Amino acid sequence: MNEIGVVYRNVRRADSAVAAKLGALGAATVHEAMGRMGLMKPYMRPIYAGAQAFGTAVTVLLHPGDNWMLHVAAEQIRPGDMVVAAITADCTDGYFGDLLATSFKARGAHGLVIDAGVRDVRVLTEMVFPVWSKAISAKGTVKATLGSVNVPVICAGALVTPGDVIVADDDGVAVVPADLAQSTLDAAAAREASEGAKRAKLAQGVLGLDMYNMREPLQKAGLRYLD
Amino acid sequence: MNEIGVVYRNVRRADSAVAAKLGALGAATVHEAMGRMGLMKPYMRPIYAGAQAFGTAVTVLLHPGDNWMLHVAAEQIRPGDMVVAAITADCTDGYFGDLLATSFKARGAHGLVIDAGVRDVRVLTEMVFPVWSKAISAKGTVKATLGSVNVPVICAGALVTPGDVIVADDDGVAVVPADLAQSTLDAAAAREASEGAKRAKLAQGVLGLDMYNMREPLQKAGLRYLD
Amino acid sequence: MNEIGVVYRNVRRADSAVAAKLGALGAATVHEAMGRMGLMKPYMRPIYAGAQAFGTAVTVLLHPGDNWMLHVAAEQIRPGDMVVAAITADCTDGYFGDLLATSFKARGAHGLVIDAGVRDVRVLTEMVFPVWSKAISAKGTVKATLGSVNVPVICAGALVTPGDVIVADDDGVAVVPADLAQSTLDAAAAREASEGAKRAKLAQGVLGLDMYNMREPLQKAGLRYLD
Amino acid sequence: MNEIGVVYRNVRRADSAVAAKLGALGAATVHEAMGRMGLMKPYMRPIYAGAQAFGTAVTVLLHPGDNWMLHVAAEQIRPGDMVVAAITADCTDGYFGDLLATSFKARGAHGLVIDAGVRDVRVLTEMVFPVWSKAISAKGTVKATLGSVNVPVICAGALVTPGDVIVADDDGVAVVPADLAQSTLDAAAAREASEGAKRAKLAQGVLGLDMYNMREPLQKAGLRYLD
Amino acid sequence: MNEIGVVYRNVRRADSAVAAKLGALGAATVHEAMGRMGLMKPYMRPIYAGAQAFGTAVTVLLHPGDNWMLHVAAEQIRPGDMVVAAITADCTDGYFGDLLATSFKARGAHGLVIDAGVRDVRVLTEMVFPVWSKAISAKGTVKATLGSVNVPVICAGALVTPGDVIVADDDGVAVVPADLAQSTLDAAAAREASEGAKRAKLAQGVLGLDMYNMREPLQKAGLRYLD
Amino acid sequence: MNEIGVVYRNVRRADSAVAAKLGALGAATVHEAMGRMGLMKPYMRPIYAGAQAFGTAVTVLLHPGDNWMLHVAAEQIRPGDMVVAAITADCTDGYFGDLLATSFKARGAHGLVIDAGVRDVRVLTEMVFPVWSKAISAKGTVKATLGSVNVPVICAGALVTPGDVIVADDDGVAVVPADLAQSTLDAAAAREASEGAKRAKLAQGVLGLDMYNMREPLQKAGLRYLD
Repeated sequence: MNEIGVVYRNVRRADSAVAAKLGALGAATVHEAMGRMGLMKPYMRPIYAGAQAFGTAVTVLLHPGDNWMLHVAAEQIRPGDMVVAAITADCTDGYFGDLLATSFKARGAHGLVIDAGVRDVRVLTEMVFPVWSKAISAKGTVKATLGSVNVPVICAGALVTPGDVIVADDDGVAVVPADLAQSTLDAAAAREASEGAKRAKLAQGVLGLDMYNMREPLQKAGLRYLD
Repeated sequence: MNEIGVVYRNVRRADSAVAAKLGALGAATVHEAMGRMGLMKPYMRPIYAGAQAFGTAVTVLLHPGDNWMLHVAAEQIRPGDMVVAAITADCTDGYFGDLLATSFKARGAHGLVIDAGVRDVRVLTEMVFPVWSKAISAKGTVKATLGSVNVPVICAGALVTPGDVIVADDDGVAVVPADLAQSTLDAAAAREASEGAKRAKLAQGVLGLDMYNMREPLQKAGLRYLD
Repeated sequence: MNEIGVVYRNVRRADSAVAAKLGALGAATVHEAMGRMGLMKPYMRPIYAGAQAFGTAVTVLLHPGDNWMLHVAAEQIRPGDMVVAAITADCTDGYFGDLLATSFKARGAHGLVIDAGVRDVRVLTEMVFPVWSKAISAKGTVKATLGSVNVPVICAGALVTPGDVIVADDDGVAVVPADLAQSTLDAAAAREASEGAKRAKLAQGVLGLDMYNMREPLQKAGLRYLD
Repeated sequence: MNEIGVVYRNVRRADSAVAAKLGALGAATVHEAMGRMGLMKPYMRPIYAGAQAFGTAVTVLLHPGDNWMLHVAAEQIRPGDMVVAAITADCTDGYFGDLLATSFKARGAHGLVIDAGVRDVRVLTEMVFPVWSKAISAKGTVKATLGSVNVPVICAGALVTPGDVIVADDDGVAVVPADLAQSTLDAAAAREASEGAKRAKLAQGVLGLDMYNMREPLQKAGLRYLD
Repeated sequence: MNEIGVVYRNVRRADSAVAAKLGALGAATVHEAMGRMGLMKPYMRPIYAGAQAFGTAVTVLLHPGDNWMLHVAAEQIRPGDMVVAAITADCTDGYFGDLLATSFKARGAHGLVIDAGVRDVRVLTEMVFPVWSKAISAKGTVKATLGSVNVPVICAGALVTPGDVIVADDDGVAVVPADLAQSTLDAAAAREASEGAKRAKLAQGVLGLDMYNMREPLQKAGLRYLD
Repeated sequence: MNEIGVVYRNVRRADSAVAAKLGALGAATVHEAMGRMGLMKPYMRPIYAGAQAFGTAVTVLLHPGDNWMLHVAAEQIRPGDMVVAAITADCTDGYFGDLLATSFKARGAHGLVIDAGVRDVRVLTEMVFPVWSKAISAKGTVKATLGSVNVPVICAGALVTPGDVIVADDDGVAVVPADLAQSTLDAAAAREASEGAKRAKLAQGVLGLDMYNMREPLQKAGLRYLD
């Protein structure tokens, strides 16, 4: 976590097909499939409603008010990547705007997750370039201090190792370690498969109390019904 | 406020026609009609712009990270109810998603107000199932600890007694005690009736200073105009 | 900053044509052109996505929970103004709704920037009357205490002098002192002019590292590439 | 909850001896004895370390930036009371200082709990007049708008009915409904009685795992020990 | 507000004797004497209880994570000054520690007010060097980017012009424009003079209701007493 | 990061003598020696002023509102350890009080770092058992859900691996990976060694501008002095 001034060029990325399938399942399902782990803090919000993205992580570590390393990171992007940017201290400055988005998109990035602010959000929305951030701010940054690219970072409370699968949507951002991508997909797909039947039952008025057999454990726990 | 592990089945609900009329007037007008009281804290926000709902309160008291009682609450919902969920400590977890929404909708719920997080917001939006919450979070919950259903709760700083009228829209969430529903409606309707004429005058350029006869009290208060 | 109970009627407004051109450039570009200064805090957000406005500032200083002076301010609005409202202490109450918006619009206001809450946001959105605020709240206010109109105020961390140019969009709110409006416009226009060519290059895959000649300074700063 | 402009003079106070005994047990023990209920939000902090107080509640409902009703409340204080002040909207102004504290103390108040700010904290500390508040602020207030005294209020997320027992210390503020004071005391005293023996065992190195017989339930829950 | 990279050496400081007298009256009294204006936000807290300081302002404008200009400011300090440091964006880094405090103290500074973080607070406390800040943080800063010294700044929501009187204590930080220092002192001293008599009366049990003649205005406002 | 329900008994702890020396240098110096990395967020505060502690990390992962695993962790404590507790979602409940502190102390723990709340702070202070937490809260917890002990955790934004050195004081909490403990100590000691001489110079009035040779780089950066 402590290397400053380095760029790792060779990243072992999770399988892109697995990443795509995890992306289709969404952040909530993926997080449940990991044993309710692997989520960034809920202050990370998409810049437009309905944003959805997935990809393999290219990580960046930045200093407060300094976005120099985002340009260094651009060169390391491969098609299908998501850039994940962490800051060494809390900062809401607008590190990223439409020019960088144009460059990231040209390199094949699927989106950006940044524990700081972004700007030009109207243009980013028109470009359909999805970003998850903790703030929106017109405040610009300088290019003066080295950070790192493709080192493990902690972004919004989650550890992200380069190559991990990132799944982001309206509900938040989930991080799946590359080693766990396939097993998480298996568990998530199984979970998802059972949801359709449940949804149909619930839509017909069947209660979760009955469908999940909760009445007995509730009674054992001491639940009392009063009139 | 202190009962844990109980479900009250018989709730004296406010009149549904009165609730509907209060709902049409909106949270701001209703709150003014109660003497500027009865609002939840402004951190309670709808999950999609333009959300509007009203209903009689079914209340739920939950523990941090545990949504078990939402299933118990589902059985107590009658058509026209709004579910109001309070947590015993601050929590942003995603207590509610599309499966519970399907169940609540099938039972006739008009919406949910929860002092915590929700998830599956894209699907909830497509279902047009309105939710007011303090957070959006993919974080799942367990089902391990008893709470209560249909006890008085404090939700986002407002006391909600089962059967109270809930009026929620883009501006926030108002709570009208069942006993005060009719008198609040009368006051709110009177207030609303006078607004159309005022709006027309203001649109023509008449100043509030003149329309509300403010010039004299302002002068008495000592207001000075300088060039 | 300390005058209470006064209304200045004669404000030296920045040139309206310059204000319009600054508005077209947007808050981020304008802020950069001022040397990365002049922004309000990023908690100031538009009430609807895509809001854009500019104008010359009519300022109001209000007390917590009291919107009396907004009516006084309405009379001082001239076509092309933006009203900028500051509060003497932190407050999220809903100071402004559709009636005041109707009046402000009739007077020719382009929008409102308020370091507090607003309400009736659905109607304001339908009216296309843009507002930047720190909160949305149905909570009403009283009319009991004098403030001031057209005195310098600090709004969301920025000093606003009556007549300053306000530029507001999705990215935030920038304040340009009237004296600096023309020079800021010149600098912002120059900055903007170079962006089109850059965007085209970046879209073709040229890296910022090369376009901005960053490789040498990065190397001098000690950046190391590892495999 | 909705009465404005009234002062109730006759309050059925909880028994003062019971209140004193609850006070000696402290907020955490009392809250546990109520089934882990009845606490104000943890943002309520004492103005000096080591503050401890208990008493029967005299309640006040105030408007943002207006402390008029604290003077009205002073007259309703009887020896052994704690004043509990709620605000109709979030506010951090300094409602209370050394003059009011002198008056409250002369009336026999044991302390103040206020969901807003206080000032003159150095003098209050020298007076050993304990206050729990959400902020410290030199910002003064006006005396312009009516609130109420001795109506039920929601203070920092807890419902307080006049006459309830308030127990406050470094850990926070607990509220015991007058009707539950004796039974809560019984439960709290029983809980406390068993703590001395436990503390002695733990001090000798006995593990909670053994003392509380947790090993079997942990194993049943699936806990695995790895080397 | 917008000059970057400049140091003004000649500051017209408020009279030091007046500053000392304002300091003795404290932040709350001074703020009241200015018509309840001139306070920084209440998140500004002293690093140790009981801290008190006053002085004439030397201002510094800093960038996020960069404390270079604090060294530049040190040279501009004259005995009796208070350094007031503003940051161009929100930042909690520890800009100031025991070495800078040693230097500031040697130059005659009375203390520091900084809208960011400080560190070495144990040593600063031992040195009895008072600091008001919004955070305490061990996080260090770089020395890479120019700011300014002795330009007007906005610090924690208050405008500070070089030479203004700063009065800081447990209750917060008040700013008195140099031009208003004498008149504010006169008003504050008058206010203070009347407090001793009031305190004595209140200590004897006289109610503010009577001492301030509030009963009639309360009755006129409609206050009702109920039993 | 994703294992739930496991306890690792064998932890490779950093050398205790090195940990003690790092502890003597303090969090700020240690963090600088790691290249300004390795700090927890500044919201982590000691429960009493002047708290200082160091040790090797025993880590615990807990669920919101559930402190069961703290009892499991107690058994894994060896003399000289610091317990570091992370929660899977934001929570301010009081997970830890005087009984657990008695047990931890009997096992030889030097202190606790917890990204949640604690209670019984008066007793903990009397016991001189140092705790760094994000909240103080009387709110109790249940014992119902498994977490883990001695897995890597993210606590207040910092990655902590079991056995890492923890250095905590008034300025915050620093984490030194076990592998870097010796090299960090060397760098920190070197840094510290030079501070005494600097402090003496600064105390004599020598300016940092001269001592650090900043005048030339400031001039090159364009700093202008004006009168």
